Amino acid sequence: MPAAVIIGAGDSTGGAIAKRFARGGYTVCAVRRNADKLEPLLQEIRAAGGQAHGFGTDARNEEAVNALFDDIEAKHGPIEVFVFNVGANVPASILEETSRKYYKIWEMACFAGFLTASKAAKCMAPRGKGTMLFTGATASLRGSANFAAFAGAKHALRALAQSMARELGPRGIHVAHVVVDGAIDTEFIRENFPERYALKDKDGILNPDHIAENYWMLHMQPRDAWTHELDLRPWMEKF
Amino acid sequence: MPAAVIIGAGDSTGGAIAKRFARGGYTVCAVRRNADKLEPLLQEIRAAGGQAHGFGTDARNEEAVNALFDDIEAKHGPIEVFVFNVGANVPASILEETSRKYYKIWEMACFAGFLTASKAAKCMAPRGKGTMLFTGATASLRGSANFAAFAGAKHALRALAQSMARELGPRGIHVAHVVVDGAIDTEFIRENFPERYALKDKDGILNPDHIAENYWMLHMQPRDAWTHELDLRPWMEKF
Amino acid sequence: MPAAVIIGAGDSTGGAIAKRFARGGYTVCAVRRNADKLEPLLQEIRAAGGQAHGFGTDARNEEAVNALFDDIEAKHGPIEVFVFNVGANVPASILEETSRKYYKIWEMACFAGFLTASKAAKCMAPRGKGTMLFTGATASLRGSANFAAFAGAKHALRALAQSMARELGPRGIHVAHVVVDGAIDTEFIRENFPERYALKDKDGILNPDHIAENYWMLHMQPRDAWTHELDLRPWMEKF
Amino acid sequence: MPAAVIIGAGDSTGGAIAKRFARGGYTVCAVRRNADKLEPLLQEIRAAGGQAHGFGTDARNEEAVNALFDDIEAKHGPIEVFVFNVGANVPASILEETSRKYYKIWEMACFAGFLTASKAAKCMAPRGKGTMLFTGATASLRGSANFAAFAGAKHALRALAQSMARELGPRGIHVAHVVVDGAIDTEFIRENFPERYALKDKDGILNPDHIAENYWMLHMQPRDAWTHELDLRPWMEKF
Repeated sequence: MPAAVIIGAGDSTGGAIAKRFARGGYTVCAVRRNADKLEPLLQEIRAAGGQAHGFGTDARNEEAVNALFDDIEAKHGPIEVFVFNVGANVPASILEETSRKYYKIWEMACFAGFLTASKAAKCMAPRGKGTMLFTGATASLRGSANFAAFAGAKHALRALAQSMARELGPRGIHVAHVVVDGAIDTEFIRENFPERYALKDKDGILNPDHIAENYWMLHMQPRDAWTHELDLRPWMEKF
Repeated sequence: MPAAVIIGAGDSTGGAIAKRFARGGYTVCAVRRNADKLEPLLQEIRAAGGQAHGFGTDARNEEAVNALFDDIEAKHGPIEVFVFNVGANVPASILEETSRKYYKIWEMACFAGFLTASKAAKCMAPRGKGTMLFTGATASLRGSANFAAFAGAKHALRALAQSMARELGPRGIHVAHVVVDGAIDTEFIRENFPERYALKDKDGILNPDHIAENYWMLHMQPRDAWTHELDLRPWMEKF
Repeated sequence: MPAAVIIGAGDSTGGAIAKRFARGGYTVCAVRRNADKLEPLLQEIRAAGGQAHGFGTDARNEEAVNALFDDIEAKHGPIEVFVFNVGANVPASILEETSRKYYKIWEMACFAGFLTASKAAKCMAPRGKGTMLFTGATASLRGSANFAAFAGAKHALRALAQSMARELGPRGIHVAHVVVDGAIDTEFIRENFPERYALKDKDGILNPDHIAENYWMLHMQPRDAWTHELDLRPWMEKF
Repeated sequence: MPAAVIIGAGDSTGGAIAKRFARGGYTVCAVRRNADKLEPLLQEIRAAGGQAHGFGTDARNEEAVNALFDDIEAKHGPIEVFVFNVGANVPASILEETSRKYYKIWEMACFAGFLTASKAAKCMAPRGKGTMLFTGATASLRGSANFAAFAGAKHALRALAQSMARELGPRGIHVAHVVVDGAIDTEFIRENFPERYALKDKDGILNPDHIAENYWMLHMQPRDAWTHELDLRPWMEKF
């Protein structure tokens, strides 16, 4: 049974993607920094009859990342799906942004993507098969005021996905980038943006399961008709 | 039973889209200039248990277009899906391009899109429901040498789709644009580009049914997670 | 003395461009539909010691356009500079836009550009020398709600400029597209958008002479460092 | 006399920019890692009657960067111009790219840009005046195969420039990004790409002085007509 590795298998989008691929017959390898927080997700997948393993790995740590992938390939089957879904946006004026935060945001939202995706590519390339999916954002395409750090990291992650798509596509690996443009139904939005969250009643915020369905769809595309990039936003979202 | 209108229901992509929506439970209203050429498609859909009607309408003729949509709404049910899939690329140096050809390409690939899409929008808007899908190409995004006419028409069609998405999205109508980047499995490619066509064996050209599946997928997206644009290309296509 | 042809030599940007090229030593051939309206501009150029001729030509009329260029080449010198500066934006909901207006906007803002630019290219190509400049707008890059017609025409014009740049650049002709993003200091803005016009005091609207300076700069770029596209907007403009 | 700080005042583009701003009346503060290598540039500027100071500063070192700017403001006048011109491209397959190199390229081509530009912005913001210019590349817009690291850094740098433009423009600071698309006349190209270098005879590679002229032009733009982005490429360059 092939494995699907989800880096950033959080409570919202990442978790929903994990569940979708488990339902599709993959052994889900869910990764986030704190393994304990993965338990509810793993239990939910197993309760539904799926296979799931949790890994508490810091995706910014190269040694840990390499060991993680080697371990998964050795114990849980060939990695056929890789998803990078780590974000970290804390807006700040360029006049106040600190170098520490600028670096941290890049390290989490981009460098961890490089470490994990390049390792995943090394697993997939010899088999000439696999799907690699990256979660993008509006900031992947646009550097808004106060978004220098996040937009920088997301632009760079998109460049990584694009470069990998061009190199690995002809080697049989499907690389795609999903631009999520809008608020997602999460605890964070519920607590911090209640007015926004209230739009949920009219489908004004993204349902993580619906995002996940698009990741699954991308994975299922036959290789004569691959998508490299698509956007996702609520019907009422301004763009 | 709601209707799906396919403008440019040709032998390849347009026909495949028609079949996909028929299979999905829509009364297909297939439109192309020459109604006779629609017969095999209609028969195939009906043989599979689907509903299909053919219309020989020139989509560049406003009166004919308006009559067509009124007729469909009156006789075949509310239009819930609209697909514009008319193309016409004949490359030429800008030093040799004629005004007649420049105009004709725009008229077919863009103006017909405006006439049909704006009429379809008028049908859908009062109901606050519907999906409108436009077929794009590489030339939608890039003006290559010798492509002034085709790229002009396709850029303009994309602008139409984008403008409609921004106006009609918040009114409940999903407008999306599909950038097809690569050769499609058609008679035209088979006859004119045999080397290219030979790539079919390794999935190097697009299968119309696979393109159609993406149109269906776009139509099925819940309204909290709509895609406005995606690209489709074979795994080995350079981009 | 070489000629600079300005299509759309109106009272604002087009006129300012004409004056700039006259000051730079070109015989200005100023073109707009109504020749009478050109008189103040011609007089201003001549009073400053420049050379200028006025032509009342409808740039949508192919025969008239061809005759115009042949006439200029025969009587006023080789055309070294071509500027297309015709616009026409009348926003409308897609539910109300008429086919007549959609067509007219394309005819003026795009088709006239094709007719004049392709004819100018035929004059320049044998000499392997020349500059062709197109005036773009925000709508060249983005299809906003209610801008289907204008954005379509401007997208198509940009595709034309891009396609010509790719074909004619290697033949020695510099083709560039200027995206003007913001209100320009014109009678129209003064009368219809007085609040906007009031921003003039703090340089919040574009000065036509400053726009013109960029056209001159593009023309003067040495051929090892050509710009194909630049944007121009006031410092306080949101983008 | 106001100061122009050039980060990455190398032998080619950076040096040419330094000379251009010195000629324009600015006290040039030329910065590169190795101060000794700045001597010929400083001497050339001084011999031509200009003012120039050299600084051997590692732009990746925040303390050093902050001390540098404070020192310049204290001793050499208010910083009115900031140029970031550091690059570092070493292509590699994603299957072979090391984390060390991926990091280093980002650190040099992007993080150093953040450190220096944000510090420069803090100097300029209280005065509501200044110009900030960033050198981009084709990789700023496109993630080509084997360019994951460089394209990532350049995409992120462009996002930084864009975000700063949006925040600081309305505060009177002009931020622009120059996309250099083509080989530049440098020792590196001469030695490593002789065939390419041979195109110099027909202006097929970029002259650093001509690039520099565009930086000067951007700085001189009146604030009602600012450019945020332009591209520069030789007339014969494919794009």
